[in-house]
Amino acid sequence: MASSDENIDWRSVCPISSALDVLGDKWSLLVIRDLIIHGTRTYSQFLEAPEHISTNILASRLDLLTCLNLIERTCPEAASRNNAYHLTESGAALRPVLEALGKWAGAHLSDFHANIAKLS
Amino acid sequence: MASSDENIDWRSVCPISSALDVLGDKWSLLVIRDLIIHGTRTYSQFLEAPEHISTNILASRLDLLTCLNLIERTCPEAASRNNAYHLTESGAALRPVLEALGKWAGAHLSDFHANIAKLS
Repeated sequence: MASSDENIDWRSVCPISSALDVLGDKWSLLVIRDLIIHGTRTYSQFLEAPEHISTNILASRLDLLTCLNLIERTCPEAASRNNAYHLTESGAALRPVLEALGKWAGAHLSDFHANIAKLS
Repeated sequence: MASSDENIDWRSVCPISSALDVLGDKWSLLVIRDLIIHGTRTYSQFLEAPEHISTNILASRLDLLTCLNLIERTCPEAASRNNAYHLTESGAALRPVLEALGKWAGAHLSDFHANIAKLS
């Protein structure tokens, strides 16, 4: 995963490919989900999500999403653990992507999901 | 990336998280894109996409998407390179996800994208 927009490996000019160039991993959209749906704001709150994101992955994703101007730090000069984060207009505009993913998974991953529901 | 549904590391029962558990990488949704939007059907055609997917990644994603019942091989018994693929109902249902990703990228990654458009 690139650490800034300058280092992103853009594979083509296709918008879908470009979206996946920056958000195509298991964690970036979960950070956005927490901000949009759960009202998460602080580093500690992100760590409390049930997916148990690790501290190094969380820090890298917060940095990347900040570089991409999808989120902003409330106090950019403060140490990262004391920061609160909020969505920019571009970050908030990802809501339809999350809704489409959630709707699809609810309808089409139900069989798989039932297996972990039994285990949890 | 898991090679079958039995090996997927489900992180939580959240539908968005579950969708990313299976599709949260840079390539899986591009394979689905090629099937839905570009009418790609064969292994060779997938390799012709401008993102230059490698043969090992393509083979792993085709296997995963088949295990997840998002795509099907026309001739399951034949060698993989001679197969054609088509979408299942669950795979075709990812169209709104692709549309949302593409719409978002077109509107919010335009500045980044302009940089590679100049280079290509």
